[in-house]
Order: sequence, then C-alpha cells, then structure tokens
Amino acid sequence: MPDIGIIGAGTAGLHLALLLQQAGIPTRIYTNQTAEQLASGRPQNSVSHHAPTIAREQAMGVDFWPATEYGYQTHFHYLNIPDGPPLYRGDFLRPSRVLDYRIYLPRLMAEYENRGGAIEQRAVEPADFERLAKRHDLIVVAAGKRSFGEYFGERPDMSPYPKPQRHLAVGFWDGVEQTDPRSVTLSISPGHGELLDLPITTLDGWASALLCENVPGGDLEILMTQKESDDPEAYRRLLLDKLKAHHPTVFERIDQSRFALMRPGDMLQGAVRPVVREDYRLLEDGTVVLALGDAHATVDPVTGQGANSASFEAQVAADAIIEDGVVDERFAMKVALRRRERVDGLSTWVNTMIATPTPPQVQRLLGEMAGLRTLCDEFTENFSHPHRNGDMVATPERVDAAIARHRAIGGDPTGTAG
Amino acid sequence: MPDIGIIGAGTAGLHLALLLQQAGIPTRIYTNQTAEQLASGRPQNSVSHHAPTIAREQAMGVDFWPATEYGYQTHFHYLNIPDGPPLYRGDFLRPSRVLDYRIYLPRLMAEYENRGGAIEQRAVEPADFERLAKRHDLIVVAAGKRSFGEYFGERPDMSPYPKPQRHLAVGFWDGVEQTDPRSVTLSISPGHGELLDLPITTLDGWASALLCENVPGGDLEILMTQKESDDPEAYRRLLLDKLKAHHPTVFERIDQSRFALMRPGDMLQGAVRPVVREDYRLLEDGTVVLALGDAHATVDPVTGQGANSASFEAQVAADAIIEDGVVDERFAMKVALRRRERVDGLSTWVNTMIATPTPPQVQRLLGEMAGLRTLCDEFTENFSHPHRNGDMVATPERVDAAIARHRAIGGDPTGTAG
Repeated sequence: MPDIGIIGAGTAGLHLALLLQQAGIPTRIYTNQTAEQLASGRPQNSVSHHAPTIAREQAMGVDFWPATEYGYQTHFHYLNIPDGPPLYRGDFLRPSRVLDYRIYLPRLMAEYENRGGAIEQRAVEPADFERLAKRHDLIVVAAGKRSFGEYFGERPDMSPYPKPQRHLAVGFWDGVEQTDPRSVTLSISPGHGELLDLPITTLDGWASALLCENVPGGDLEILMTQKESDDPEAYRRLLLDKLKAHHPTVFERIDQSRFALMRPGDMLQGAVRPVVREDYRLLEDGTVVLALGDAHATVDPVTGQGANSASFEAQVAADAIIEDGVVDERFAMKVALRRRERVDGLSTWVNTMIATPTPPQVQRLLGEMAGLRTLCDEFTENFSHPHRNGDMVATPERVDAAIARHRAIGGDPTGTAG
Repeated sequence: MPDIGIIGAGTAGLHLALLLQQAGIPTRIYTNQTAEQLASGRPQNSVSHHAPTIAREQAMGVDFWPATEYGYQTHFHYLNIPDGPPLYRGDFLRPSRVLDYRIYLPRLMAEYENRGGAIEQRAVEPADFERLAKRHDLIVVAAGKRSFGEYFGERPDMSPYPKPQRHLAVGFWDGVEQTDPRSVTLSISPGHGELLDLPITTLDGWASALLCENVPGGDLEILMTQKESDDPEAYRRLLLDKLKAHHPTVFERIDQSRFALMRPGDMLQGAVRPVVREDYRLLEDGTVVLALGDAHATVDPVTGQGANSASFEAQVAADAIIEDGVVDERFAMKVALRRRERVDGLSTWVNTMIATPTPPQVQRLLGEMAGLRTLCDEFTENFSHPHRNGDMVATPERVDAAIARHRAIGGDPTGTAG
C-alpha cells in the first residue's frame, strides 16, 4: 500500500488525508502552522462550501455544521445601473455554507489526528521534495505558496492574465442584516467591481463577509489599497461611503451604529492572479509530485470556488490512489484527465466574468437572468458545478443558447424580489 | 438546436443517432450500404456487447435480444503450456451478448427510421465534408475506412505498432458444443496466439464464433493467410488440426461430423493495426468534424471491445451535444477529455496483451488468475470497463499490486473448472 506525504493542511490536504485515512492508506500532513496558530490568526478567506463539498464532508464524517442550520440556498443579484432591474433571485437545489476557516481547519485537523493521522509542523520548500520522497511513495503539494506554484509551472493556455484582475478586500462585519431568506448577495457595479455579501459563521457567531472585488483603476480600488489596519475607523467610513454609492442594496441592510469588524483585524486585503498550473512533476527517482488545490490552480475568489475545487481535486486524487494502489505517472495522468474539465471550466467561467471590459455575453447573461428565473436558478446551481457556468459564458453563442433554452421552457419572467 | 450529420451506420453512428433522436435533436445518417445489403452480406465481426452497452441499448429502447436469453456471464481461460492449469473461470457481474451484426445493424437502422430518422445511402469521402457542413452544424465521422483515419491523423503516443500484431481469422461455426454455463473461452497458445470461442446468435440460430488471433510468424498464422474461400474443406481440416494442437479444450467440444460454417462464406480473414487518432478537426468555416468509434480508435479485436467503445463514445458525444446545445470546438474538446481515459486505457490493455514477446507481467497475471478466483473475476468484469484492465496490466508493479490486493482478501485458490 502506498504511503502518501501531503504538504498543506487546507481543504485540499485535509480532505485528501481524511479520504485516504478512511480507506486505510497511510498519510502524513506537513504544515507550517499548528491548529492553535490557525485558530488565533487572521481570516483565511470567505469561501462557501457548496453541496457537493458538503456531501463529501458528510461521507468523511466531518460535517459538524449542518447546512440546514448554518447554510443558505439563495443568491440575490443586483446590477448597479440606471433603471436596472430590482434584486433578482436564483435558488440552489441544495444548501451551501460559509464558515470561518479558523473554526473549520482546526476542527478537521483534530479529527484527522483523533483518527490516528500524523500532522508534522514543518516549513517545506521544493528543495525538500527529494528527501520527503525517501519517506513517502507520493508527494502531494496542497498549499498555494509562491515557490510551489513556480515549481509546477503555468499552463499558458489557461493562465491568460499577466496580473490580478481584481483588487480584493474582505472583512467579517457585524451590523449587516441578513436577507430573508438567508442568502448570498452578488452586487455588480459595472466598471468598478463586484461585492459579495456572504452569511458567515465566525468564532463569535453570524457575521457578514463583505468581499469587495474591485476593478483596478476603478472607484472602488481604494478599498484594497487603503490599509484597514492603518486607521480602522477611517476605513469603516470609507467602506460605508463606497457601499452607498456602488452597492446600495447591501448598504440598505447596514445598521451603522453596529457596523464594525467582528474582531479587530478581521480583514484581508490583496489580489490573486488567476493561474492553472501543470498537474505534476517527477523527481529523479520517479516519484510523482502532484499539485492539488491552490498549488494546482488559483482562481479569483469572485465566485467563491477555491475550497470546492480543492475538495473536488482531493476526491479525484483519493479515488485514483485507492483504485490502483500504485502512484506512478499513469496515476498522475489519470488525475490530470479526470479533473481537467472542471478545473479548466471553472477558470473559463471566472476569467470571463472578471475580464475588463466585461464581455458583451456576460452583460447579456446578467441582464437576461433578471427576467428568466429558471436561467437565474441554473446559473446559481452551477456554483456547485462551476465548469457548467464556464460552458455557458465561454462565447456569445453559448450564452444565446442558454437564454434560448430557458425561454423555450417558458421561464418565469417574474424572477425578481424586493 | 444543432443539426447533426453522421457518417456511418455502425454501432457508433446508430447509437449516437438514437440517443440524439430521443432528445429531439435532428440527425441524418449517411451510409454506403442499405440495411438489406448488410443483412445479406458477409459477417461484420464477432464482437460482444457488455453490460454498459446493453444498459445503453435498454435506455434507447433497442434491446430486442435480452441477455438473459441470448447472453453469457462467464469466461473460461486456458493456457496451452506443459503442466499448465486446467480451465479457470471468471464471472461477470452482469451478462454480455454476442449477436450477428447482420441481425443487429439492420434492426437498429429500421428502428431509427421508424422513429423518424433519415438514412441516406451515399459514399462519403473527406472531400465531401465542406459540402455536408452547409447542411449540418456538426459532422460526426463514425466509420473506420482508411480515408477517414488518414483525415484525422494518428496520435503517435497511443499508436505504438507500425503494423498489425495479430493475423486474424473468424468464422461462425456449427458443431461446437457450448460450455456449461454458456461462456466465452479465451485459449492462449503462447507464441502462437489466442483463440476466442464466442457463443453468437446468427441468422440461423446459435453458432460458435471462433476468432483466431494468430501471432505473425507463428504456427497458426496460416489460418489467416490460407484463404478459406479457395478451398473450404481444406481450410476446415486445417483449422481442426490447429485447434487440436493449440486450443485443445475448444477442440474437445467439436463434433467433427457437424463442424462447418453456418453459411458458406461466414468467415473473415485479415488484420488490424491498432491506432488512436486525433479527436476532431475544424473545417474552414469552423464546423467541427468529430471522430467517433472506429474513425477515432482501432483496437485489435482480441478483447472484443470495438462495439463497446463505439457505444461509449456515442454516449459521451450525445451527452455533450445535449448539455450545451452548441457544437463548437469547446464541445469537441469536452468530448475528447471525457472519453480519453477509457479509450487510451483500452488501447493500453490490448496493446500490452498483443505485444510480442508477451510482456512478463501479462504472463504473470494470466498465471496468477488461475489460482485467484477473485482476480480472475475482476479481469473478466473489466471487459465492461476495459481501461481498468489497462491500468492493471500497464506495468509489472501494477500487476503485482493487483495480485497483492486479491491475495489480501483471501482470494479463493480453487478458481478452476473442468
């Protein structure tokens, strides 16, 4: 039976470790942070786990946060344009859930260790792979740090942007009233960027994760460049002003007397360049080094897919390891084939959405979604199957085909909500 | 809704047409033979339809030959070596079925036409594709003739042999007693080739399709080179002599007083070079020309997989057409990705089995199967999932892993039958 070394204790690494552990395959996780350091550190992200990921968590026995209680099943959409449509709604078939990773990751690490798994705190670099290969039959790199990305190298065909397309700021805020039903709001201010308002369960209970995806050079870019930590109160006022101007339906739900970060420093500011990397490399002795999750593909978080990709890739890798019990290059090629449609399709979706200027078919799709409820539902449900949205938005003809098929089934033109 | 032109009325073309017809997508089949010509012509092959293919036939409403009545569920294996094991048995989880294509294809063509499908008799060449593209949104080439193969071009990585590795002769014979239970027998005469004895339903009832897969230069090559039509009686005697020497457990079941072809000329002699071709090409106007079935991949028939590959590929193509309703290059790339693991894995399996000399891991696997019933069952069931046998036999380490996992579950060492 092969022995698997896993670098990284995020969703990719932990899901892979837990899946293999269930199958009785030995693993060891290497990570540079202890569970305690993670729990007391800064936010990691504001990612949602969609139904396929939650189903995997259930199968692994780590769904400690039932989506019926912690989840949501609706997207509201808003286009900040003159005479634009009111909020329009799309529903998932099954609920999704947003959880503070300072709760999630330490809990899964504890579970893995309680079941006999070994987590070793150690900073690993590519130069260490040869040595790790003496201890393991397969090295899985499931962490997104720069040196790992450079080790695998980019796939130019799926890495179209030389730099980030959005400048990001995400904070966990108190004082934002939840919608009814509880939902994620996607508010788009054309030319300036998107805001995602996500209902997140934090260490102190419910909060609103406001993820500002700001177009470089636009009016909202300052939300990334002005550091919150320099003057928290100034940043808070700035954010309120910008929300009022660009994302009014979110602004309207804010109680300004309570509006504050849940904990000081509950804020991330930065940017992500979308990249898909090569699937694997071989060491001198033939050992496979497999890229997983963030090491394999980095997507802009505008559609909140990173964790779901990571979990999906972990399942693909675990299945292939379990099936054959041999972790040679043939195994690595199998993983590459099986994940490519979803990984590349997700990238197509996100990279099309964040292009500047917004491609005409994306504008057309978002506009039509306001009047075609079933189309809006499909777009929403596809957050669970993101490559399908890649297929939908890839070309003007494909958007036309999607609109036509929803018109043909008599899409409900009242897909609006106040 | 796209309109699909399909060239070829074999399993690939007919299954695709029937699947799309069920989804309300317009199709037209072009073929160079009418159903009547097919029905009165020479045998097409001796291919078995395995459970996934039969399940597809059931879903299409064309399973007119229930496998409970026309099928079999067992493989017997024989190694013609001194002091070799007696016949050893492997079972499928679900039955397979062998049917004379002079019954099968005309019946499916009639069904397609009865449901409103159009079949046009016409000889098509690659030079005609541009003209057909004015009539259809997608051209699917589902016929294996040489000019189509040359049109798509080979994938060198999956086309390792410059010429055929077996010289073939297959006839539909009366006078061969069926095994109990009804089965396919795979008899291997090392250095000389394989014999498959398949229980086939012909126009005149049960027969034995004896498929002789002869190693070039071996003692059995003459079964291909000596033309049966030159002197049928001499060929009949030759075959009996060769079966007696090389495939004795099949010979023992022959009643020589009845041993004869079901109908004069029920015999095919020839050879197949294993090739996997590029998935598609684009015409000047951007229309996709998709390779399907034999046009896409040619496998040696030793494992009887051609029709199952064709049906699988038809399902993949139909799914992708139905999903998006757009038949652009993105569609073609999706088809390519989704079928690659199975198509390449099948090729790996067959090309490893027919290598000369037989690779040591194949010898080891066949030997161990005699004593490990569950391993023999897995190898047998994998005729329904042939890429899994590709994964199993690809390297010595992979065969060792398969043997180890069956030993670990306490494989029954009495996997023999008389």
